[in-house]
Amino acid sequence: MRIDIISVLPELMESPFQTSILKRAVQKGLAEVHFHQLRDWSIGKHRQIDDEPYGGGAGMIMMIEPIDKCISDLKAQREYDEVIYLTPDGETLTQKIANTLSIKNNLIFLCGHYKGIDQRVRELHITKEISIGDYVLTGGELAACVLADSIIRLLPGVLNDEQSALTDSFQDNLLSPPIFTRPAEYKGLKVPDILLSGNSKKIEEWQHDQALQITLEKRPDILR
Amino acid sequence: MRIDIISVLPELMESPFQTSILKRAVQKGLAEVHFHQLRDWSIGKHRQIDDEPYGGGAGMIMMIEPIDKCISDLKAQREYDEVIYLTPDGETLTQKIANTLSIKNNLIFLCGHYKGIDQRVRELHITKEISIGDYVLTGGELAACVLADSIIRLLPGVLNDEQSALTDSFQDNLLSPPIFTRPAEYKGLKVPDILLSGNSKKIEEWQHDQALQITLEKRPDILR
Repeated sequence: MRIDIISVLPELMESPFQTSILKRAVQKGLAEVHFHQLRDWSIGKHRQIDDEPYGGGAGMIMMIEPIDKCISDLKAQREYDEVIYLTPDGETLTQKIANTLSIKNNLIFLCGHYKGIDQRVRELHITKEISIGDYVLTGGELAACVLADSIIRLLPGVLNDEQSALTDSFQDNLLSPPIFTRPAEYKGLKVPDILLSGNSKKIEEWQHDQALQITLEKRPDILR
Repeated sequence: MRIDIISVLPELMESPFQTSILKRAVQKGLAEVHFHQLRDWSIGKHRQIDDEPYGGGAGMIMMIEPIDKCISDLKAQREYDEVIYLTPDGETLTQKIANTLSIKNNLIFLCGHYKGIDQRVRELHITKEISIGDYVLTGGELAACVLADSIIRLLPGVLNDEQSALTDSFQDNLLSPPIFTRPAEYKGLKVPDILLSGNSKKIEEWQHDQALQITLEKRPDILR
């Protein structure tokens, strides 16, 4: 999988991709992540990439021309499955969307910044708009990191133990059951006896019951 | 505001806090962000912080003792308004939650990693569990960055133009209207005439109508 991320602040995304799972995925050649500084496609002698909104109002708008040039250059080099704009008014990211995107080959992520992008970029290039949740961030950069992480960790070979991703929350429409490790007692707080019993069938039943109970209590909406 | 972030991978969070708005907020003294490497509170000669789950299963669990020691040390130094655990089974982050947290003084964020934390940590210390969305990430670190960004940008004086945050998506239960900047025509794509009219009353009406229409179409659930 190849992901091209377009942003005015690619340096914001450095450390998440230089650490842990994402770093390992890149080193193993399972994922390629390329950052593109939008200013490299800026226009005019002032290297402009943003301008004031038509009709007035606060905040600057990212201009259509630099973005069009950048995306067109990328598209001239390979075919992309999706050109994704990270925006609070996009489709809300779910595990299902992450699963679907994880089987694609080439993706472009466009990070909005300032007040957002000129609406016409959406008409011209964007095939999918994704929001990571109902809140506003300084820019799309952290959203791009979140989306990349949610996808890349699903690629075969990225996690050491494939079982680990399959038993995550949401993969079976259930939240995870409570988990415990040593010591069996700490400041009077004990691990449930069943988990110390060694009876793996009973333990599995208990875990499933707990997962169901917790999901019913906290998130009945995800049970289908 | 002071945020203390506890993690086994604090280096993952470096670049987001060294860039743009978050960096400026810290430099201006509007927000203090302190990272704590959980391994500094590890136990035993192997500096252990995680162990296998009771009852079997994939993935490692973060042990209660190092986390308890770390949080207890912080609590001995000042009072915290909330001790927040970032976890996919927490309450889903919304702009309203970000608004509420932005008026607190001292917050602790605990980032889960591996398979998560020993359940008893939640009973002992956690006052709030937050999920940034219905998807699984490699760890709580990116979620902590997202939560910090959503809160810190709301602090008075952080954004250059206060108006800018108030007109964001979600603050009035509406998505933003489409935005445009120069040129007025690009590859046959035109800016709506109304925005070029100079009639600010009509423009405002149009923007409100558009916001309402877009919200009805994409996210009728957030209209209240």
